[in-house]
Amino acid sequence: MQKPKNPSGTRDFLPGIVDKRNWITDTIVSEFRKFGFEPIETPAVENISTLTGKYGEEGDQLLYRVLNTRDLDKRVSDNLTVEEGIEQLVKMGLRYDLTVPLARFVVQHQHELQFPFRRFQIQPVWRADRAQKGRYREFWQCDADIVGSDSLLNEADLIRIYHSAFTSLGLNDYTLKLNHRGLLEAAAEHLGLGGKRFTRFCVTIDKLDKVGKEAVLVELQELQPQIDRSSLDEVTNSFAFNRGGIKDISDFLGESESGKRGIKDLSAILDWMDPQPNVTLDLSLARGLDYYTGCIFEAIIPDSGMGSISGGGRYDNLTGVFGLKGISGVGISFGVDRLFDILTDRGGFPKDVESNDQLLLCHFDEKGMKYCNQHAAVLRKEGFATLVYPDKKKLKKQLDFANKKNFRWVLLAGDNEINTNTFQLKNLQTGDQHTIQTAQLGSSIKERIGD
Amino acid sequence: MQKPKNPSGTRDFLPGIVDKRNWITDTIVSEFRKFGFEPIETPAVENISTLTGKYGEEGDQLLYRVLNTRDLDKRVSDNLTVEEGIEQLVKMGLRYDLTVPLARFVVQHQHELQFPFRRFQIQPVWRADRAQKGRYREFWQCDADIVGSDSLLNEADLIRIYHSAFTSLGLNDYTLKLNHRGLLEAAAEHLGLGGKRFTRFCVTIDKLDKVGKEAVLVELQELQPQIDRSSLDEVTNSFAFNRGGIKDISDFLGESESGKRGIKDLSAILDWMDPQPNVTLDLSLARGLDYYTGCIFEAIIPDSGMGSISGGGRYDNLTGVFGLKGISGVGISFGVDRLFDILTDRGGFPKDVESNDQLLLCHFDEKGMKYCNQHAAVLRKEGFATLVYPDKKKLKKQLDFANKKNFRWVLLAGDNEINTNTFQLKNLQTGDQHTIQTAQLGSSIKERIGD
Repeated sequence: MQKPKNPSGTRDFLPGIVDKRNWITDTIVSEFRKFGFEPIETPAVENISTLTGKYGEEGDQLLYRVLNTRDLDKRVSDNLTVEEGIEQLVKMGLRYDLTVPLARFVVQHQHELQFPFRRFQIQPVWRADRAQKGRYREFWQCDADIVGSDSLLNEADLIRIYHSAFTSLGLNDYTLKLNHRGLLEAAAEHLGLGGKRFTRFCVTIDKLDKVGKEAVLVELQELQPQIDRSSLDEVTNSFAFNRGGIKDISDFLGESESGKRGIKDLSAILDWMDPQPNVTLDLSLARGLDYYTGCIFEAIIPDSGMGSISGGGRYDNLTGVFGLKGISGVGISFGVDRLFDILTDRGGFPKDVESNDQLLLCHFDEKGMKYCNQHAAVLRKEGFATLVYPDKKKLKKQLDFANKKNFRWVLLAGDNEINTNTFQLKNLQTGDQHTIQTAQLGSSIKERIGD
Repeated sequence: MQKPKNPSGTRDFLPGIVDKRNWITDTIVSEFRKFGFEPIETPAVENISTLTGKYGEEGDQLLYRVLNTRDLDKRVSDNLTVEEGIEQLVKMGLRYDLTVPLARFVVQHQHELQFPFRRFQIQPVWRADRAQKGRYREFWQCDADIVGSDSLLNEADLIRIYHSAFTSLGLNDYTLKLNHRGLLEAAAEHLGLGGKRFTRFCVTIDKLDKVGKEAVLVELQELQPQIDRSSLDEVTNSFAFNRGGIKDISDFLGESESGKRGIKDLSAILDWMDPQPNVTLDLSLARGLDYYTGCIFEAIIPDSGMGSISGGGRYDNLTGVFGLKGISGVGISFGVDRLFDILTDRGGFPKDVESNDQLLLCHFDEKGMKYCNQHAAVLRKEGFATLVYPDKKKLKKQLDFANKKNFRWVLLAGDNEINTNTFQLKNLQTGDQHTIQTAQLGSSIKERIGD
């Protein structure tokens, strides 16, 4: 028989891993909550019509479709190809991201919600991508969005969340790149690359990190051979500008309507905050152009060797695709899997998440096992995670189990301990062993463990 | 445009609902952890070969199959029917329960795990069942299992978890029914209903709760017209027996090997525990016969009008279906959705889960909004979930928002407050209002809120 496996591109999370992943999401959630965000959850499956046409042609190709086995018995029209037959039978698909489900949710529940609506959501999404290292077919998104408010205070709050979340995760060296769709449009126009060539312009400058400034220059000149050299310098010199540099940018981008809008928005956002050393204004940041209409965010950990670990922005027409106009949204999304990989590489998890503080009660015979069973109940009441080794095995086997599972503490009960109402408390890391009276079991252990 | 909807049989969880559901699972998890269980997670999708043939014919019909959209382009052999074409393309299915994935997980990771392996897992499962009130196509299971130990101490630990979990949930009136596959076999043999008629016997007596004892008697006599009346009385009188009654039962079931096994196991389990008033021995309990081989559990809340809210048992050959023999498992599974419904009916959630303790900072103009924004940072540092109303709207609109979202406290800042470095702290339930100095913002609010 072939050994069974989880599907390619998916993962099993073993004990220890789940706790570390939960520490990441709990840390982020605690920041979301401090800013008034509340949790929602949506189903893993959506009606297929909710999903198709929302992620571009490539996205549609990556959707998983869900078939009801029972429906296979239903008659489909004769003379169909297999593909046509499937189209008739498929009614649902797996969630591809958390943004389209949010839009569907807001339209469907608009009369049950209060706006501005601040929600967070942490759930898996599925994409039929080529599976490779660091790219999964099932992965977790951790999103916070504000729906139904145009105020730029929301953007400022999201930037603050970035700061407090990364700091709490011990990733103080994060960089948050900030840009605005309006500035991108103005820069493209400034170079004569507006209109139909805007997307190509964005794709080109977005590659700056990967290919370097010279290669970007060459590609821009290919796009527009008559490009004005001094305009080009102005734009490329502004790829990374700072708070003070907003004025310089407005000198050459501030003429166009979109440029004015970008400068006004970014200035207002920065005004809402205290100075933020981790925030970089970056004219070359151009992600998710299909739907972002205002401010754009991207967070990286520069020396992690990994790309974006979080992104977001404002989309002025979140729910328009489902027929509800005039509802603006702004949000950010953390990639839990990449954060996990970075923290694993750095050994960045807190000690209490990594260590096993359970107590294992070991015994030499049936009588000892009963004695352990009886006192385990007391320990659990005092809040200790407590396990009586459940089988009558030799002590060596029990201690092997404890060592392999990284238990730090075991309690041993032989005849001598039973007769004197005691346990031996053994520290498996140091080998130290102490006699503990059952009368003060919990408090004595707390004292020792606190050593 | 048609209003978009979540698929039939699935649910969106709105703010407030998620927190209540989390309270249920957190409460149960805290008990799991006290008994040394650790969390694992498995993917929502499994290879289809992992799932098919594991849940009987009816179960196979309820499996959702997952299709890779890209695969639609792949050539399937000519002359296939749509059904045959789909069979060729379907490689995955959605998780149907947490037990088969656990078996697959244990076989796949056997060399990374330490046995006995105590794991818990809380994840959604999917079944293409007819959607109706209280029956969902996507619902949550919350399982704890011990794998790789034959000791009956494990069963005793699970019974203790039932007690501590239900007590912590405030469901002290739960009843835990206990039976044993061996006793069922012995009772069937005693009535001449063993062998091929065993399953019919079990199905019949399992209906006791619904149809009553008389109807069960009639049906048993139809099954076996020559049934011995006194044997029938012995069995039916023992449908609900108590700890003391084990001796009576052994008088007429203790001759057969399976009867002896059942009596020995149940006696040992009860010996491992303190007396448990909520545990009932119930000879008519016969769930999940396809795989349970030892002790069987079922928990109900008698006056909830709902059926089983948790079940479980021992299955001696958990991993045999995947080629790993001799690994025994015993586990229980809580239905999160039914627990939620019962607690909702009873108003059984703790007050702090239901109330909104966020602070909303309200303002009259841009200046006030900036003042609020500045002090919100202080409040968040002191641990308050704090939201500045993000738009410049009339105070009435801001307070409407607060009332509809059940905020208990708002902080108001007008010119007078700004000039005197104060806020008005208003209790929306009583209308009481107090002046608070910004110098002791956090401590003053804590004092008031603790009122």
